[in-house]
Amino acid sequence: MADNGSHEEFLVTAVDAAKKAGEIIRKGFYQSKNVEHKGQVDLVTETDKACEDLVFNHLKQHYPSHKFIGEETTAACGTSELTDEPTWIVDPLDGTTNFVHGFPFVCISIGLTVGKVPTVGVVYNPIMNELFTAVLGKGAFLNGTPIRVSSQTELIKSLLATEVGTKRDVLTVDTTTNRINKLLFKVRSLRMSGSCALNLCGIACGRLDLFYELGYGGPWDVAAGVLIVKEAGGLVYDPFGKDFEITVPKVAASNPFLKDAFVEVLKQTE
Amino acid sequence: MADNGSHEEFLVTAVDAAKKAGEIIRKGFYQSKNVEHKGQVDLVTETDKACEDLVFNHLKQHYPSHKFIGEETTAACGTSELTDEPTWIVDPLDGTTNFVHGFPFVCISIGLTVGKVPTVGVVYNPIMNELFTAVLGKGAFLNGTPIRVSSQTELIKSLLATEVGTKRDVLTVDTTTNRINKLLFKVRSLRMSGSCALNLCGIACGRLDLFYELGYGGPWDVAAGVLIVKEAGGLVYDPFGKDFEITVPKVAASNPFLKDAFVEVLKQTE
Repeated sequence: MADNGSHEEFLVTAVDAAKKAGEIIRKGFYQSKNVEHKGQVDLVTETDKACEDLVFNHLKQHYPSHKFIGEETTAACGTSELTDEPTWIVDPLDGTTNFVHGFPFVCISIGLTVGKVPTVGVVYNPIMNELFTAVLGKGAFLNGTPIRVSSQTELIKSLLATEVGTKRDVLTVDTTTNRINKLLFKVRSLRMSGSCALNLCGIACGRLDLFYELGYGGPWDVAAGVLIVKEAGGLVYDPFGKDFEITVPKVAASNPFLKDAFVEVLKQTE
Repeated sequence: MADNGSHEEFLVTAVDAAKKAGEIIRKGFYQSKNVEHKGQVDLVTETDKACEDLVFNHLKQHYPSHKFIGEETTAACGTSELTDEPTWIVDPLDGTTNFVHGFPFVCISIGLTVGKVPTVGVVYNPIMNELFTAVLGKGAFLNGTPIRVSSQTELIKSLLATEVGTKRDVLTVDTTTNRINKLLFKVRSLRMSGSCALNLCGIACGRLDLFYELGYGGPWDVAAGVLIVKEAGGLVYDPFGKDFEITVPKVAASNPFLKDAFVEVLKQTE
């Protein structure tokens, strides 16, 4: 098949892959509670690997000349450099802790960059049956219905999402909770769902007004979500006002009205 | 109709009421994003009031001699004392911030105490279509399927839930974030969903291992969830090791294995 399909063709192929991977995730999700801890670790690894294989095989079959970056392969083969070539960036299972515990915020995230620009984005939560999609210049959708970021203009009325990450050294934990402390005086309330990709989708559909996360796993956590936020009318940016780079694990997102005030507060916590 | 129905009859009546109130919540939930801020405040108030009226009328029609305690009526009429009489304790809309923002953790909570003992509990999330139910001595259920608390025995592998509440004075916020700081060194990760009743149900079905919350609204936030946790094999207790009282806004919950270690850590943050 042709590698130079339209963006819409790329999207259809990615959605097919996400739906198939979703079946694997769904099966493991309901199975996870019934296996011992060692079995849970294996189940995560197996599910991760099976989903990535499925998605990569599906995409490679359609687009053999495209490049691929994934959490599993990259962890195994060292860092993959993002080039100008069409590149699929895949997180086969975002929210692994949720997956193990049966907390319903899990998803598969599939993003395509062309010339390093996010061009197609698919985030699928098979437990809540929510499919977020976007194509560059064509808007963002939840289960086929157009979505928009919130219209909130005031930080103090905004719902903030963030995560506490996995590092538990004193410096990281202190910085994390001090930042939350300062932000609590500025926003309405705080949510933690455990999935970076779904937090970005939460911004895109206006359930959340503000999101930041530092130190997440890699570009696969944000490649699809970044486009979905932008196509929903939102902004994705560096939390401390520098240039946002998809390969640097620092991200913030909101509607355009809130960005300056949010970055101002975040800078005070850097 | 008879006031002295069986516990199962009480449950069926409460589920009927919850499902009807759920329709009102669902309608408002999807409408909320499309109204202005002032309209949102009105929508919350109206939905809260309409759900409480519906539930109380439904229950009173069946059980005219029973007592009733609800967030709306109690806020309007002063504190209602909990007596030994059969008493329905209702939160018509738990997770009002989520309701306004369209974040899907909202529910109606209906609990019945007899002799101050939680006897029937119903928590219904009409957005995710999850109905949690319990009757004293008869187990706990999610959409009719029996549920159990997690079998986790180690804090460090446990998923913790809590909330940051609504108070934003320096002492409360500092205490809240210092407590989170200390706990992050002891548990696997942290979730905040924005609904006390649904956090308790999360403990009951093993999605969450640990939960505590201080300073929530009143007994209506926990009356149903407490029974659902207990009937799922869990424990509900005072976070700092005192006797748990449904009328004091301090609650912790977990499976029996984790209680002592959890209280030990929480005491260090009192």
